[in-house]
Amino acid sequence: MLIQLIDNCPQQELENIMAQLKTHGFKGNLVETLSTRYIISNGKKEADIRLFGNLPGVKDIHIVEDDNKLVSRKWRVEDTIIDFGDGIQISRKDLTIVMGPCAIEDEQQVDTTLEFLKENNIRFMRGGIFKPRSSPYSFRGLGIEGLKFFSQKCKAAGIKVVTEVMQVSQIEEMYDYIDVFQVGTRNAQNFNLLDELGKTNKPVLLKRGMSSTIQEFLASAEYIFSNGNEKIILCERGIRTFEKAYRNTMDINAIPYLHDKSHLPVFSDPSHAVGIRDYVEPIALSSVMAGADGVLIEIHQCPQKAVSDGAQTLDFFQARRTIQRLRETVALRNKIMVG
Amino acid sequence: MLIQLIDNCPQQELENIMAQLKTHGFKGNLVETLSTRYIISNGKKEADIRLFGNLPGVKDIHIVEDDNKLVSRKWRVEDTIIDFGDGIQISRKDLTIVMGPCAIEDEQQVDTTLEFLKENNIRFMRGGIFKPRSSPYSFRGLGIEGLKFFSQKCKAAGIKVVTEVMQVSQIEEMYDYIDVFQVGTRNAQNFNLLDELGKTNKPVLLKRGMSSTIQEFLASAEYIFSNGNEKIILCERGIRTFEKAYRNTMDINAIPYLHDKSHLPVFSDPSHAVGIRDYVEPIALSSVMAGADGVLIEIHQCPQKAVSDGAQTLDFFQARRTIQRLRETVALRNKIMVG
Amino acid sequence: MLIQLIDNCPQQELENIMAQLKTHGFKGNLVETLSTRYIISNGKKEADIRLFGNLPGVKDIHIVEDDNKLVSRKWRVEDTIIDFGDGIQISRKDLTIVMGPCAIEDEQQVDTTLEFLKENNIRFMRGGIFKPRSSPYSFRGLGIEGLKFFSQKCKAAGIKVVTEVMQVSQIEEMYDYIDVFQVGTRNAQNFNLLDELGKTNKPVLLKRGMSSTIQEFLASAEYIFSNGNEKIILCERGIRTFEKAYRNTMDINAIPYLHDKSHLPVFSDPSHAVGIRDYVEPIALSSVMAGADGVLIEIHQCPQKAVSDGAQTLDFFQARRTIQRLRETVALRNKIMVG
Amino acid sequence: MLIQLIDNCPQQELENIMAQLKTHGFKGNLVETLSTRYIISNGKKEADIRLFGNLPGVKDIHIVEDDNKLVSRKWRVEDTIIDFGDGIQISRKDLTIVMGPCAIEDEQQVDTTLEFLKENNIRFMRGGIFKPRSSPYSFRGLGIEGLKFFSQKCKAAGIKVVTEVMQVSQIEEMYDYIDVFQVGTRNAQNFNLLDELGKTNKPVLLKRGMSSTIQEFLASAEYIFSNGNEKIILCERGIRTFEKAYRNTMDINAIPYLHDKSHLPVFSDPSHAVGIRDYVEPIALSSVMAGADGVLIEIHQCPQKAVSDGAQTLDFFQARRTIQRLRETVALRNKIMVG
Repeated sequence: MLIQLIDNCPQQELENIMAQLKTHGFKGNLVETLSTRYIISNGKKEADIRLFGNLPGVKDIHIVEDDNKLVSRKWRVEDTIIDFGDGIQISRKDLTIVMGPCAIEDEQQVDTTLEFLKENNIRFMRGGIFKPRSSPYSFRGLGIEGLKFFSQKCKAAGIKVVTEVMQVSQIEEMYDYIDVFQVGTRNAQNFNLLDELGKTNKPVLLKRGMSSTIQEFLASAEYIFSNGNEKIILCERGIRTFEKAYRNTMDINAIPYLHDKSHLPVFSDPSHAVGIRDYVEPIALSSVMAGADGVLIEIHQCPQKAVSDGAQTLDFFQARRTIQRLRETVALRNKIMVG
Repeated sequence: MLIQLIDNCPQQELENIMAQLKTHGFKGNLVETLSTRYIISNGKKEADIRLFGNLPGVKDIHIVEDDNKLVSRKWRVEDTIIDFGDGIQISRKDLTIVMGPCAIEDEQQVDTTLEFLKENNIRFMRGGIFKPRSSPYSFRGLGIEGLKFFSQKCKAAGIKVVTEVMQVSQIEEMYDYIDVFQVGTRNAQNFNLLDELGKTNKPVLLKRGMSSTIQEFLASAEYIFSNGNEKIILCERGIRTFEKAYRNTMDINAIPYLHDKSHLPVFSDPSHAVGIRDYVEPIALSSVMAGADGVLIEIHQCPQKAVSDGAQTLDFFQARRTIQRLRETVALRNKIMVG
Repeated sequence: MLIQLIDNCPQQELENIMAQLKTHGFKGNLVETLSTRYIISNGKKEADIRLFGNLPGVKDIHIVEDDNKLVSRKWRVEDTIIDFGDGIQISRKDLTIVMGPCAIEDEQQVDTTLEFLKENNIRFMRGGIFKPRSSPYSFRGLGIEGLKFFSQKCKAAGIKVVTEVMQVSQIEEMYDYIDVFQVGTRNAQNFNLLDELGKTNKPVLLKRGMSSTIQEFLASAEYIFSNGNEKIILCERGIRTFEKAYRNTMDINAIPYLHDKSHLPVFSDPSHAVGIRDYVEPIALSSVMAGADGVLIEIHQCPQKAVSDGAQTLDFFQARRTIQRLRETVALRNKIMVG
Repeated sequence: MLIQLIDNCPQQELENIMAQLKTHGFKGNLVETLSTRYIISNGKKEADIRLFGNLPGVKDIHIVEDDNKLVSRKWRVEDTIIDFGDGIQISRKDLTIVMGPCAIEDEQQVDTTLEFLKENNIRFMRGGIFKPRSSPYSFRGLGIEGLKFFSQKCKAAGIKVVTEVMQVSQIEEMYDYIDVFQVGTRNAQNFNLLDELGKTNKPVLLKRGMSSTIQEFLASAEYIFSNGNEKIILCERGIRTFEKAYRNTMDINAIPYLHDKSHLPVFSDPSHAVGIRDYVEPIALSSVMAGADGVLIEIHQCPQKAVSDGAQTLDFFQARRTIQRLRETVALRNKIMVG
């Protein structure tokens, strides 16, 4: 059961609702986001909403049988739109293209990439400054100093910064320099990190854990939402299976499934999902037809020299073609989905 | 190493080539198909093709390092086209749509389905008459009697019959009534069945085993080809993973990957790959953008009454919309892939 | 619902039971094995057994909610014992050790192996004569001629022959030469083969499919049983997972689980489950403590020269040590499980 | 290449070695643990150790081709022993039994459990005070206050505390109250946490990620070791596969494999690996025969009332029997492995 409170619900009315819930054997979790307040109740399933619907302070009440209630489409049927306030939006009407290198390497690389993005009217740049690496001896990113010049240059170009946060202590450190916090696949169930990101007011691009079920993926999003942050992007990036011909197995089914179950935007990361340059474009295009609201694609001015993930990275020539084809594909999708 | 023999290569020249191979430490496997003869040699990898290239009887010679040589694109760079001789082709230029029920149930069902297919200009009907079922107590298909009326009605309608063969003894029994033999996922490594299908002259639609790697999938196709039948269609139908929200996990990566490694046509079966009606269309459309040459989709005049697989089956209203969208999508694909 | 009929149940009484089932909305499947006859009913779950328990011809009646009723322990609580009639039994009290090469190669190999087995008091020899191979160009076994000398030598030594059958047509061909039919992992859902093996009177050692769930594994056994053959051995041989450090992932959980759900004997195949010689022994010993009734282990007088699976094959020196340790382990197990 | 430095290696000699490495194209990573200092070099693989072996300051030098060098048995052939200095050791000669509830619930529960452990001569108690939960609305542990009484009671009983740490900020907070830091499966690739645990001097029980490969698992241990902490315990706790009959799939192969590749002790967690009470004991016993140096088993005075994981938790009666059988099994193992 999910109870939306009226705006400025008086404390006394809130307490009364909580008391009524308790009387009828329910536990209530108060969730406060920037836009409103909710009570999430996980008591007996056979709740009778008539018991609570008319209590003072209740704006609306929904039966949501899903374990993950706040992110469920069962109570919020409209798609969540993430609005950056300057005309840039993440929404289902458009396709958000996020491009950039695996890792930020130096200023010149950022300049070159931004130039390419501007030419192609791309509004989001990705680039790692804290890199989770399987070996402790590998390059682990430029850190906060790298983020500073990356951020400053993006701002100047009118382009949003998307970069990975790896631990709680980095949130504050990074806050002023980023537009979207990215949570990587290895931290998809780092609940402390999710809790703290839920207390911020920046969008969170949440990658699916490489072996997370859809339910667990939505539960990770629920962690963020229930701490107060409604701006969440779900990102399918391939799962781990027996097949080793490619880096991961793109779970294309997840895209329509997540759209059906949740009101949150759903992105696709074809670069990691297949991990081989030549197949990134077809997987990106197929993601669009499956309904993706955005794609993350790794690009580099010279993939052969990239410090990481070169094998799955497009050069600018390839990226330009892919952007063009993505736009033609989304135009078709928008046309036939209405028609 | 793959050696193509000249047309009508004399027996003596063939024997000489074989002897030369042996002298240099290679084993030769003679493969004879309707169109030509090949020798497949799996000896030492560092073969020097100059030793054999000028022998009498040799038309062409290719180094093919793949384990699965005949199905590899390394020697045959052109896409294989399967031509039915009556104007119907399976080729990369067009999208082959195969529709029909999971199981043939009765004559009326076949009539109704054929009417729908004709209206929508679909040229292939699927329908099981031998059904592999997980429980021995389930309906196992109408058998050969069902095939007879299914076949007769399809012929009258100018529509090709695609149906599953489960064991060697059925090949002869079914031969005159079918246009395409389908091999199901549970028989994807039934090597005796593949051997015998390789000795026929009918196209084989080979479904990927639910846990077959791409290499094993191609090896199964190699079994068919090496027995003499070049008319093979590879069909991705979802693999088994940890994710249980859907019936299988569509391995969309496989579509561009198979196209890259093999000259054979690649189909997609979204019905089994996701197993939930509402997601069949988006997965079908995404398969097209990933490069699929054909799609298999389960339809039924009344899915609620289907004897099997109802939950993943489209009704005619849904199917009509999906056909329309598939055709718009393939038109876009053909346009942008050239552009 | 599972109904056991009285011995020599008259046809009329049987028909009456069937009619009563139908009247109450149930479907009855008659199953006839060497020892008795059963009716398996898969109708509504909420069957009231009092409706049928007193009908003439009914010996006993059980509610078995499992999908796979005949192989379930819910109606047959005693462990199935497979008795060869000459003092050799497969039962839970003892550990059945099956050893031999992956493939039968020649007479001398059989002689050498049998000598080793006799010295060590092993009563079952495994050895492939029809080999399922991933490549069509690999050695596919000596075939029926190999089986003849293999069988004749085993008989002379008082040792049972365990070998794989790959297709229906081989059953009759092999029948007189084998003691146990083995079904390989790739044929675990070859339902036609299972049906036909169910009509024979020889024990069937059924390997789990490499991606079969436990439910599917039991369903495959149900196929055999429901065709009339009660002599079935379930064999866990490793499943396919993301982990590629070893050939397969031994699913040790399956051993106690299968024992709990089914009355059939459960074997373990550590050679295939791990696929690396040095780890075969610890996995074999651990299988015993998990409750395995038997183990299949590949051995060869010279594993380096084995035509297949050499990397997972023990030499005689190693095998002797493993046999000794297996026997000490099973002695401990039998002691502590009682104590 | 792994270079061990002499004790008290002068800074100048260290710098000289680093310079020589650089001259020859190698990168050197200095690793300092409590007992000694190492240089890990990941340069060209074809290093000639004679170039460096005689440099002043070098004690020993090893070619270690594994990616994870410090945890590899290739340079340290002896098993790592973790000594608590009070007569309690984790070593291969004995079996370390760690028991306790999933979550610490209250003081009385700790008292009752400790009494049971003392009676049975168990020296390690597990119990979660920070609980990673898939739903944000679930009980998430008593936190640091719970740890305080848990720790104080264990100290009084002479029993070691094993409990999970979830994030960097908790390390210092928990430090004085714990004997072994446990890293849970969801944090197995939380590299920041591993880094910081590597800077402490307390043993770390590292659980395998639910979808970590063996290589990734060892890399996670390498993170800890390369930060200076050599006291690491590897714990197999089941992996995620397609099989859903049990909570996870115990990867029993991992136990001998990890012992072969690494000098670190290897534990098994049968409670999570199978997740069903009745099968915990057979999986525990089988882990011992596979070579486990320790087992973690969840117990509770009343599993039906446990706040989490009740279904896989043993009551004291069952636990007593399991302890007895574990001890008999390890006695046999130690006997036959020598014999």
